[in-house]
Amino acid sequence: MSIENLSSNKSFGGWHKQYSHRSDTLGCVMRFAIYLPPQVASGQKVPVVYWLSGLTCTDENFMQKAGAHRVAAELGIAIVAPDTSPRGDDVANDDGYDLGQGAGFYVNATESPWNTHYRMYDYVLNELPALVESVFPVTGQRSVAGHSMGGHGALVLALRNPQTYQSVSAFSPISNPVSCPWGKKAFAAYLGNDTGRWAAYDASLLMRKAQKFVPALVDQGDADNFLAEQLRPEALEASAHISGYPLELNLREGYDHSYYFIASFIEDHLRFHGRHLER
Amino acid sequence: MSIENLSSNKSFGGWHKQYSHRSDTLGCVMRFAIYLPPQVASGQKVPVVYWLSGLTCTDENFMQKAGAHRVAAELGIAIVAPDTSPRGDDVANDDGYDLGQGAGFYVNATESPWNTHYRMYDYVLNELPALVESVFPVTGQRSVAGHSMGGHGALVLALRNPQTYQSVSAFSPISNPVSCPWGKKAFAAYLGNDTGRWAAYDASLLMRKAQKFVPALVDQGDADNFLAEQLRPEALEASAHISGYPLELNLREGYDHSYYFIASFIEDHLRFHGRHLER
Repeated sequence: MSIENLSSNKSFGGWHKQYSHRSDTLGCVMRFAIYLPPQVASGQKVPVVYWLSGLTCTDENFMQKAGAHRVAAELGIAIVAPDTSPRGDDVANDDGYDLGQGAGFYVNATESPWNTHYRMYDYVLNELPALVESVFPVTGQRSVAGHSMGGHGALVLALRNPQTYQSVSAFSPISNPVSCPWGKKAFAAYLGNDTGRWAAYDASLLMRKAQKFVPALVDQGDADNFLAEQLRPEALEASAHISGYPLELNLREGYDHSYYFIASFIEDHLRFHGRHLER
Repeated sequence: MSIENLSSNKSFGGWHKQYSHRSDTLGCVMRFAIYLPPQVASGQKVPVVYWLSGLTCTDENFMQKAGAHRVAAELGIAIVAPDTSPRGDDVANDDGYDLGQGAGFYVNATESPWNTHYRMYDYVLNELPALVESVFPVTGQRSVAGHSMGGHGALVLALRNPQTYQSVSAFSPISNPVSCPWGKKAFAAYLGNDTGRWAAYDASLLMRKAQKFVPALVDQGDADNFLAEQLRPEALEASAHISGYPLELNLREGYDHSYYFIASFIEDHLRFHGRHLER
């Protein structure tokens, strides 16, 4: 697997680096970013938190705006931030910000024209961790987190693969995509009109019947413009109640959907993951 | 003075807000951002650190990328980030990123066409603080800090106005603009070819003959691409040695010119200002 380093910045004693590589899963060149904490300089292998970003984002938003490096450096955790979709001139796209490039929704598309490249579920679950673990000084210990569309992705990945992740967390996740406009639009395009096939990518439906648990933390701002129509954390909470899922859901007064909200609570999330990741 | 609120985000228990106002000094509409720490909610007035950004920046770069809100919230300090130049269709501009809009260099221009609007020195020293102190719950206690071109601006403002600022700090400042390409280009355009008039805006020349002191902290990465040609901290250090100026200059191994460097050490800078600002 060839991988090209695009940038390097020292940050809190560790390193923020961007890479590109040819993804077999997605059939295109992909960029991702990794934060390597200072502990790796002494030969220590560290666990990884995978961060999945929201609509319109790339690998850069979280790394630049979340203020996460400080805590990751203290805890000795690497963070990997993939892009939010396949990219490129030969990759299908849409004029909307909520479909196509920048809006992969972390699913494996089955419908044309999306099924050629849009396989972000497999990419984040399999190809990217295999690459990261073959190239960087990291252990096989993984957690997953994300924001909005990426919060949905993180929850779905952990709920469907409890053996793979030590913990999962989300900010403002799209908790019940089968019942909100963002989810209905994306799932109809990527997965087709048979809504029965959507359930495999709906965190609330998955959590309702979950039997193996991954510790889960969700933060949601109550001043988030998307809360009632798109995010629906109450569906996730109801599902956790039914299955007895270990979900901690915090409603945060006055906070919105922005990275200022994420920055305010990312320390809690990283310490949560830090408690579940073996060193 | 009328002022319009453009955005509001809760952040670390306080508020990040953007405003626009008509500036008499600059003759155009200006945007700035303020971080108000949680202490103001209980009626407490707080001191202000003015943050001056570098070339191509707006009020947003520092607020989004520096991770400063966490520490400002803890210390009870407001941060005000102005734009880096006058803006607008009727404001003179240049194709270069290092002259014109986004590159005001915190001077009062004397040369046409720049002298119509480019008076960032007066704006940051007088008009903006008067506006901020009339509208927000802040005291008259001020410190000033900045990055690159903004580090130059912060040092010049504090060196020329020691009665106005309690402390000054800079990341990667343009320390001796009269002798570097960025400074020569901007000063020739804004101030004319009589280099004798440039000295009033050169931190190293000002510090060399300073008699009243403002505690000063400077951080500089040794992997900064601009270090040798543009920044010249050694000139500032030599001047401090001559005048006995209380300058702490830290050379940081491996760090570059990016906001990852600023984020890594902003806590030190805010705690430094916090020690000098009365509550």
